[in-house]
Amino acid sequence: MVQIDLNCDLGESFGRYVIGNDEKVLPLISSANIACGFHAGDSSEMHRTVGRAKKNAVAIGAHPGLRDLEGFGRREMNVTPAEVYDMVVYQVGALQAFARTQKVRVNHVKPHGALYHMASDHEDMAEAVVQAVKDVSADLLLFGMDGTYLTAAAEKAGLHVVYEAYADRTYQPDGSLTARSQPNALITDEDQAIRQVLQMIHDGTVTTASGKKVSVRAETICLHGDGEAALAFAEKINRELKNQGIEIAAWH
Amino acid sequence: MVQIDLNCDLGESFGRYVIGNDEKVLPLISSANIACGFHAGDSSEMHRTVGRAKKNAVAIGAHPGLRDLEGFGRREMNVTPAEVYDMVVYQVGALQAFARTQKVRVNHVKPHGALYHMASDHEDMAEAVVQAVKDVSADLLLFGMDGTYLTAAAEKAGLHVVYEAYADRTYQPDGSLTARSQPNALITDEDQAIRQVLQMIHDGTVTTASGKKVSVRAETICLHGDGEAALAFAEKINRELKNQGIEIAAWH
Amino acid sequence: MVQIDLNCDLGESFGRYVIGNDEKVLPLISSANIACGFHAGDSSEMHRTVGRAKKNAVAIGAHPGLRDLEGFGRREMNVTPAEVYDMVVYQVGALQAFARTQKVRVNHVKPHGALYHMASDHEDMAEAVVQAVKDVSADLLLFGMDGTYLTAAAEKAGLHVVYEAYADRTYQPDGSLTARSQPNALITDEDQAIRQVLQMIHDGTVTTASGKKVSVRAETICLHGDGEAALAFAEKINRELKNQGIEIAAWH
Amino acid sequence: MVQIDLNCDLGESFGRYVIGNDEKVLPLISSANIACGFHAGDSSEMHRTVGRAKKNAVAIGAHPGLRDLEGFGRREMNVTPAEVYDMVVYQVGALQAFARTQKVRVNHVKPHGALYHMASDHEDMAEAVVQAVKDVSADLLLFGMDGTYLTAAAEKAGLHVVYEAYADRTYQPDGSLTARSQPNALITDEDQAIRQVLQMIHDGTVTTASGKKVSVRAETICLHGDGEAALAFAEKINRELKNQGIEIAAWH
Repeated sequence: MVQIDLNCDLGESFGRYVIGNDEKVLPLISSANIACGFHAGDSSEMHRTVGRAKKNAVAIGAHPGLRDLEGFGRREMNVTPAEVYDMVVYQVGALQAFARTQKVRVNHVKPHGALYHMASDHEDMAEAVVQAVKDVSADLLLFGMDGTYLTAAAEKAGLHVVYEAYADRTYQPDGSLTARSQPNALITDEDQAIRQVLQMIHDGTVTTASGKKVSVRAETICLHGDGEAALAFAEKINRELKNQGIEIAAWH
Repeated sequence: MVQIDLNCDLGESFGRYVIGNDEKVLPLISSANIACGFHAGDSSEMHRTVGRAKKNAVAIGAHPGLRDLEGFGRREMNVTPAEVYDMVVYQVGALQAFARTQKVRVNHVKPHGALYHMASDHEDMAEAVVQAVKDVSADLLLFGMDGTYLTAAAEKAGLHVVYEAYADRTYQPDGSLTARSQPNALITDEDQAIRQVLQMIHDGTVTTASGKKVSVRAETICLHGDGEAALAFAEKINRELKNQGIEIAAWH
Repeated sequence: MVQIDLNCDLGESFGRYVIGNDEKVLPLISSANIACGFHAGDSSEMHRTVGRAKKNAVAIGAHPGLRDLEGFGRREMNVTPAEVYDMVVYQVGALQAFARTQKVRVNHVKPHGALYHMASDHEDMAEAVVQAVKDVSADLLLFGMDGTYLTAAAEKAGLHVVYEAYADRTYQPDGSLTARSQPNALITDEDQAIRQVLQMIHDGTVTTASGKKVSVRAETICLHGDGEAALAFAEKINRELKNQGIEIAAWH
Repeated sequence: MVQIDLNCDLGESFGRYVIGNDEKVLPLISSANIACGFHAGDSSEMHRTVGRAKKNAVAIGAHPGLRDLEGFGRREMNVTPAEVYDMVVYQVGALQAFARTQKVRVNHVKPHGALYHMASDHEDMAEAVVQAVKDVSADLLLFGMDGTYLTAAAEKAGLHVVYEAYADRTYQPDGSLTARSQPNALITDEDQAIRQVLQMIHDGTVTTASGKKVSVRAETICLHGDGEAALAFAEKINRELKNQGIEIAAWH
């Protein structure tokens, strides 16, 4: 049976500040990327989110980010590889404790926002993230895009890599995402987005804007949980995948 | 052989801000209470401090505090027991990850500052701290003072409690510390401080200001590492204890 | 013409985190209490909120709070009067700069959350807040409740005090609010809430739960902007007051 | 009489964390760049530092930085010009309030660390800083280096620019500083550093490593207050300048 993982960023609320529809999106996904208190989330939110993921039998992942709550971890910062290593160890460890108290385990790590981009684009950042994950636990899966320094470093280090792909983003001939600054970066037509995912799963390819088919590794699809439209799309793709006989499940 | 543990707060530097003489105090103690990033410390400091403790064969402890860097975790805050539980789980977990990456383990937990006082004086705070420690790992030792809600709750929960006593503080007839607001709260004479510790170890008692002997459980002595005087005293008490044939070692 | 001020807490969003319906509540009120970055708000939010208040001809006030974003400034902290003085000076000054850049001025100060309560209940905290406001600018109005240390200290210092009252809270025979922990603390019936406000304005009294009439100084009414129900009530009371020929305007 | 300003970063302590020798360096300088709570400093430290500067008749300046206490504002962040504008308004305003409460005024603004570099190297960042300063008060002096976007934007906006130069850094033929990554970036010989300053003042030139004389505008010299060596140098250059009949004074 063909299997795909659906992942979504969760646990991003902070104190009285609420972001996301975690309760509603959890039944639709198989892996939760849980914010760890640097770019979003706090310790009580982590506690709650691990509990909710467990109740929905959704695999738990750490979503470490830059220490920039004001910028939601989306503003690149000139941190050193050593600082990146330490921030990943710290955040993954904090989440592991909440998993342990609830008798579940952290299954994967996916860097968040600017950290994800920095680790994708820079070899030293990629190696720092990968080494941190490996040192904390070599059993942790690492989420990243094919063709990036992040997944290359993870493969080299012997980590189990889960290749992430996108339903709502267009691809370039080299397999990278079209930059958000470009006009056709986003796929707003839901049916087209679902067709793209199905093609990824069945054919291992994606069709670029120019019509070229390029190969893409798609083992987990990144969904969004913030806003009604995102939630509606998550429901739709979940249903379509099941209708196609594709199993929605986390990798282990 | 008689055994005593000497503990000290370490890893309290933050970014460019330095507090303490960690390198110098480590050879003199047997247990390090390492700040976990809420009241002091940051992820890189935790990394370094675990490494230094390991190099000195000093047992590693988590020193969770209130999320108040500006107040160094010394200002009591009106947090709920649930928030206390979560802040302890988070911080202990973060330190455990740094221990794991360096192939050592966290041996004990000692709440810091206002959190220590709140957990000593209030049953619900004590229970929250104890439950958090137990849920993260029932093998963790808990440091606290005899006669407090903190150690009572820990004993009740079946945790291994290590009773903390003070060289430089005077005691009241009920076994509690003289409040710092009182004129005779501090013992400034080093020889008297050392005599107090020796009496605690050999006789299980302390002599109050009024001359009364009261029993006190002293399994770990709290030293300070900040400032030349504190360091000199740590050297002196370390030497005197060894001269008396007392083994300075962490409990396990 | 009878005049009443309607005030509401605004500018409480932080980074990507949104709280409140500032755009919708602004046309209904006459004074905005703008968060200053400690318990809520950030510098960009302050910029935007001053602009929105100006556009709606709503008077601008500083809403300084404790430095506790996670707790939204609602958790009392054991800060010193000197720390309170400094945190108020800092936050009011920051808002004044945003007012100056937009060619408006800060008209009032209302302490937020736990700081409001601490300054109401403790003389030293009240004096610290009042001295800070006066030192920054003796022209600033201070919002507070009658019968508190806060307004007593402000009167004594010669500040222009604007007495705050509540539409949705019941009062005790001594003129204080019924504690939220009590069953009848909140007035959930909108018509009753509006009647309470009209009685305050026209008669200078409020009727306690036990039916006793006590005098109350009501120069500004505290409304809420978070949530549909709060917004609907703000619209209703605004309309009713106008229908009664009462002018809704800030004091100066 | 020839005049030069000596400036130094002050007020960088945070809570219990101490950086600098503010009391000792203040008698040696004429302008203090006071941290405003984002990259360093807190509200109580600002209060104290304004008071100390006033007592020493040292001109007060705001030293706004990035919101990155952990990195001391030295890590470049991908902030927008609008965010830069807002962070400068906020921080300058906060300091102005402390100046007002102590009946002095903020005389200048000097961006700190990464913000200084970003505003020197990028036109949009320079314009954001300059516009913020001008909007808060067109009377504020702006400190920056000749040949940068920062001072160019400030001149264009009609701000009074004070040109900053360095005693302990070598210059390139284009008038820029030698990058710190280069071996000869720092001048460690104190006499050479003082000769460089005197040449700047008397001749308006600096001699590059390759022996070429290039013109440099030097109206304020940046000194350091952290560490014994820095302090000793500050004393030495202060004495030498006075011996040469040069007046050490802030610009107004």
